[in-house]
Amino acid sequence: MNNFTYYNPVRIVFGRGSIAQLQQLVPTNPKILLVYGGGSIKHNGVYEQVQAALNDHDVIEFAGIEPNPLYETCIKAADLVKQEGVGFLLAVGGGSVMDATKFIAAAAAYTGADPWDMVLKKAPVTDALPLGCVVTLPATGSETNINAVISRASTAEKIPFKSPLLYPQFSILDPDTTFSLPQRQLANGIVDTFVHVCEQYLTYDVHAHLQDRQAEAILLTLIQEAPKLFGPDDDYDVRANLMWCATQALNHNLACGVPMDWSTHAIGHELTAACGIDHARALAIVMPALLDHQRVPKADKLLKFAHRIWGITCTDTNAAIDTALQCTRKFFQDLGMPTRLSDAHIPSTVIAKIANRLGQRCPHIGEHQNLDTKAIRAILEATI
Amino acid sequence: MNNFTYYNPVRIVFGRGSIAQLQQLVPTNPKILLVYGGGSIKHNGVYEQVQAALNDHDVIEFAGIEPNPLYETCIKAADLVKQEGVGFLLAVGGGSVMDATKFIAAAAAYTGADPWDMVLKKAPVTDALPLGCVVTLPATGSETNINAVISRASTAEKIPFKSPLLYPQFSILDPDTTFSLPQRQLANGIVDTFVHVCEQYLTYDVHAHLQDRQAEAILLTLIQEAPKLFGPDDDYDVRANLMWCATQALNHNLACGVPMDWSTHAIGHELTAACGIDHARALAIVMPALLDHQRVPKADKLLKFAHRIWGITCTDTNAAIDTALQCTRKFFQDLGMPTRLSDAHIPSTVIAKIANRLGQRCPHIGEHQNLDTKAIRAILEATI
Repeated sequence: MNNFTYYNPVRIVFGRGSIAQLQQLVPTNPKILLVYGGGSIKHNGVYEQVQAALNDHDVIEFAGIEPNPLYETCIKAADLVKQEGVGFLLAVGGGSVMDATKFIAAAAAYTGADPWDMVLKKAPVTDALPLGCVVTLPATGSETNINAVISRASTAEKIPFKSPLLYPQFSILDPDTTFSLPQRQLANGIVDTFVHVCEQYLTYDVHAHLQDRQAEAILLTLIQEAPKLFGPDDDYDVRANLMWCATQALNHNLACGVPMDWSTHAIGHELTAACGIDHARALAIVMPALLDHQRVPKADKLLKFAHRIWGITCTDTNAAIDTALQCTRKFFQDLGMPTRLSDAHIPSTVIAKIANRLGQRCPHIGEHQNLDTKAIRAILEATI
Repeated sequence: MNNFTYYNPVRIVFGRGSIAQLQQLVPTNPKILLVYGGGSIKHNGVYEQVQAALNDHDVIEFAGIEPNPLYETCIKAADLVKQEGVGFLLAVGGGSVMDATKFIAAAAAYTGADPWDMVLKKAPVTDALPLGCVVTLPATGSETNINAVISRASTAEKIPFKSPLLYPQFSILDPDTTFSLPQRQLANGIVDTFVHVCEQYLTYDVHAHLQDRQAEAILLTLIQEAPKLFGPDDDYDVRANLMWCATQALNHNLACGVPMDWSTHAIGHELTAACGIDHARALAIVMPALLDHQRVPKADKLLKFAHRIWGITCTDTNAAIDTALQCTRKFFQDLGMPTRLSDAHIPSTVIAKIANRLGQRCPHIGEHQNLDTKAIRAILEATI
């Protein structure tokens, strides 16, 4: 097991009716900026619950955060924060809104020339406004960590960004908010969660047995609960389990003492930046091909994955891995995911562009730093 | 799944050589009180590592915290804190030292007449000194929560105590510190951890599937790793897994959204207070008998425990539970634990005293509040 530090001070408030607790959780003195997306919260009752809880607070709003939130949009919100003297940010939405709010919190307090430097050049985040979240779409785990992913329209880039100053003070998760979500968004969230776990689990063995089993706990729960969605067994508890899986997948507990491989996300971000495909759909295409390509260095963990997650008892390593990857693809497909570029109507001409761009920015990715431009191209070519 | 709030701001620093990080983690301005036990840290190199890391700090010491730490001892340390103007407490040891340090932190800041009121009468803890931990014995999980258990010699009482003001600022866990521990203490730690998990897992089903699997992750890791201790496969990773299991068992993540049953601990504390038996040994005697007694209300979870932890596929409920309890007892026995009062040379005459005393203090314990004096007596009589 590798050495590690774990620290996560986010207060999680989980369950039916929990949005009302905003009244106590949001500070009363500063002006609040309520940040949200395309307005779905105005149709599903969440907006009214937030307004009712913040009845005694001084709240202004910034709407219109898009999926894959744009730098250009966030900068407008950061300007509003400065103009209005906002002192606390409340994100109400899914990963895009939470990620955008994190960047707004840092950008509004940034004293350098260009806030994009914090993303592209990893310029240090030296200050940030406090923030809290109301999660309406379980997926990214952004509610419980310091990470965000920001896109820039003018350059078609999508790049991760993080700072220890960006822990939400609290995150409220009410599984009832998920009942108004379309199937596509729920499916995206499940696949995003599944891949978050795999990127912390499917590397090489460092005898971190508890962490392996904790990763498996989430994968097994997703596989058990996801098929119930929209069927006769769909209920509050199904939603609650899927929502809690998403949070637990990326609170960094799984990352304790183990190597990680975020190359599926790195390649997936490029695919989304280039083609506009949903984040989770990009991951569903990339991950099985990447695991197939890396089956030798990842063999120990892939065999564990085959045995414990998919119940595969076959003793031939390659056959077991093949079957495990087939099961994984089928799980994604049953959720309506594409698992090939052609399923998503993405032309193979995009491959060279993605591989070259990522290869330039991050010449070596993966837990062994062994994925270069050529390897990324090979992985994507296997998804045609 | 039940509603819940989860908050745990303890910074965990885990791994080989991590004690050196005290230099950065302990604040430099206030005077530090180093709290420890019977002096084993002076023989295993831990004391020297702490001293070296705190070379630039102003440190005084309080030694002599006993197993099942005594109120009478803690009060002497609290007096020293006040006399010397100590501003930060550093616990170096196992659960007893950490628990004592938490009580000292609260007692030194207590403004009421008698600090024991915080324990016995649950008088509010209104202030506490900041504290940090260096864990040398994985067992109680005290390094990652707000709980402590304090005993009072003059009244032969052992009572839990807690406050949100008592989160350690940090806890350092170096698995290498465990190599000097005697087998008995390591075995105690494993059983304590196992029972902590069971008291959060073996209640009734609320469809918290992820939490069930997270509990199982710890139990399966303990069962896999514990037999390696002192054998040819014993190594740093075995120690690291067991140490991380102990912390993860009681950081309250498992408690999210589920009912809990702390009655094995409640009865076990009385047994220790009355007879001086090691905490974990008391638990090893009580828990199997308690689960047996509560097999009807706990049936769903006991069957899951039988199937997923012990691989029992038998479809007869009572037979499956019987076998699961046999496996549990054998696991404890293989670690050198007693599983009956007679194994520990405890006379059955103690039963009435324990049942009456606990029945008076807590007339109804268990997740259904259905264990009264009579039930406690029946459970203990089954352990004769």
